[in-house]
Amino acid sequence: MSFWAVIPAGGAGTRLWPLSRSAEPKFLRDLTGSGRTLLQETYDRLLPLAGDRFVVVTGAVHHDAVERQLPDLPAGCIIAEPSRRESMAAVGLAAAVLERRDPDAIMGSFPADHVITRSDAFDACVQAAVSIAADDWLVTLGIEPTFPSTAFGYIREGEPLAGHDGAYRVGEFVEKPSEEIAKQYLAKGGYWWNAGMFVVRPRVLLDLLADGYPEFAAALRTIAAEPERLEELWETLPKIALDNAVAEPAADAGRVATVPARFGWDDIGDFDSLTALLEHARQAPAAGPTILGDASLVSALDSTGLVVPRSGRTIALVGVDDIVVVDTDDAVLVTTRAHAQQVKQIVAGLQASNRDDLT
Amino acid sequence: MSFWAVIPAGGAGTRLWPLSRSAEPKFLRDLTGSGRTLLQETYDRLLPLAGDRFVVVTGAVHHDAVERQLPDLPAGCIIAEPSRRESMAAVGLAAAVLERRDPDAIMGSFPADHVITRSDAFDACVQAAVSIAADDWLVTLGIEPTFPSTAFGYIREGEPLAGHDGAYRVGEFVEKPSEEIAKQYLAKGGYWWNAGMFVVRPRVLLDLLADGYPEFAAALRTIAAEPERLEELWETLPKIALDNAVAEPAADAGRVATVPARFGWDDIGDFDSLTALLEHARQAPAAGPTILGDASLVSALDSTGLVVPRSGRTIALVGVDDIVVVDTDDAVLVTTRAHAQQVKQIVAGLQASNRDDLT
Repeated sequence: MSFWAVIPAGGAGTRLWPLSRSAEPKFLRDLTGSGRTLLQETYDRLLPLAGDRFVVVTGAVHHDAVERQLPDLPAGCIIAEPSRRESMAAVGLAAAVLERRDPDAIMGSFPADHVITRSDAFDACVQAAVSIAADDWLVTLGIEPTFPSTAFGYIREGEPLAGHDGAYRVGEFVEKPSEEIAKQYLAKGGYWWNAGMFVVRPRVLLDLLADGYPEFAAALRTIAAEPERLEELWETLPKIALDNAVAEPAADAGRVATVPARFGWDDIGDFDSLTALLEHARQAPAAGPTILGDASLVSALDSTGLVVPRSGRTIALVGVDDIVVVDTDDAVLVTTRAHAQQVKQIVAGLQASNRDDLT
Repeated sequence: MSFWAVIPAGGAGTRLWPLSRSAEPKFLRDLTGSGRTLLQETYDRLLPLAGDRFVVVTGAVHHDAVERQLPDLPAGCIIAEPSRRESMAAVGLAAAVLERRDPDAIMGSFPADHVITRSDAFDACVQAAVSIAADDWLVTLGIEPTFPSTAFGYIREGEPLAGHDGAYRVGEFVEKPSEEIAKQYLAKGGYWWNAGMFVVRPRVLLDLLADGYPEFAAALRTIAAEPERLEELWETLPKIALDNAVAEPAADAGRVATVPARFGWDDIGDFDSLTALLEHARQAPAAGPTILGDASLVSALDSTGLVVPRSGRTIALVGVDDIVVVDTDDAVLVTTRAHAQQVKQIVAGLQASNRDDLT
């Protein structure tokens, strides 16, 4: 069995501005203070499973940065997208390339900007998914919901999967719910967060795509066969998420399984979730704010929240609760954990004012 | 009648950190966006009354900055204090110098870090005070309290002063009251804020000082007569506020009058009062934060308060109310209007950590 790790490295992470920028997005950043970027941590996590069998799909503008951050990646492992075309095109092209390169391949797709803890549980979960994918299932990893999030889609589990303890058929994928609905899911049980991680044979993925989008699948296979046609054909590919193009219709057709994950997972969607992640990691009740960076730069009085000192300047907080202060060389963000989602509106405003230098 | 303007230019303004620094305190700063520093505005305000009769008393370290900011000040108008010794020594030395220089002098002492509006009312008030001081009264200007402040001492008015319409004897000076007591003062009426502005003959001031502190008054007169002995004698002078050394005992002796002020006054004690002052000046309900500086540097969403962009960086606010953000080249302050008084504790903490470079 030949397991390949596919890493879609996209996503602007605008809710993490001004840490995340279009020129240096979230996945190229060390957002947890670990000393490794999210991309590097994703690579590190998959190395024991994949060895040197990696495909990283990223925007052409990030190709060199990815290469610098992953110097041990064998040559030819990076696919550079000429432009952003959503996840189906990115992951589908990786599948088409692998289908030609290794007929026995089973690929696992893992976004470059997630944080995962308990790596042994991760390994076991992926190995279980691989053994199911070998039987031509599309296998998603289901994340146990820890709160009624309205930011994620959910996977409703169906019948247990014969021959695979702990795995289920997927009943359906459900879109991001209201908070009320999300609470019902948690109360009922049998619902899992869809984190966009899945394991599948490349051939199966492309054939499932071909069921609904035959030209799309054909174009991807043509690019894999004739790489010089990438630029020409790329712009003709539909901008659609893999969930919509493949996962949802395949679930309706009874072709999708899920393996509930037993590892810790966070997509660091915004500064609120980053704060929660860091507070959890330091395993201490919050006495003063969490500091991501050089703590000697922060003077805090009666304050809680998150401070990210990245410009070298001293930051003083007085009497501010659940505050978020991110200080960079050219921009300072001040918000609260409760308003962290709205940071993307600042980025949109700056772009509308032609301040692309700041975004 | 020869009116001299005395400007004590001291006071660290630590509650206005990081705008106000020990090397460049509040009075050397343009805190209102007027284009003139507080010292310059004080000079401008007094120029029509004093002509070229000025004495500025400031710390030796600020001598050159004062000279640069007031290039039209005649030579010899700046007294440089070798060290900080409170207001009695500073203003007393100015009085001793004027007593020798101009036997007809009447001096008015006006701190360099106050903001005053309605300058015609100010002129009229000072002229009334001068005419009373000519009869050897110590004349304070009483500020009409606009709220029950606990940050100022109060002047209780006594009997109307015969021959001077609208002026009163001072019943007593009362120390900074509790909020409850301050509310009673406002309800009762006849109480005025003591803003540390007064008009007096230099001889009268020094003689009043000599009643309680004969050696202090003698030392000041010796320095005025023999300026080369300044360094030697300065260090022997008591560290005491003028209110305690002279004004309070003189009031008990029935020697103090007060002229209620009809002008607008603010001592910009902290970022809360600065915000109120600026909001009042722009005469508009707060839609978004007040910005002291280049408004193009601020992106605000659902936020109110004060932003001071001084480093050239973009500052983004999301969902923060009554916030105070002060961005300078080496330090960023984030607090709320309600906590503005506590900013001095940050300065104290930095000094305790030997971070004098930041204070």
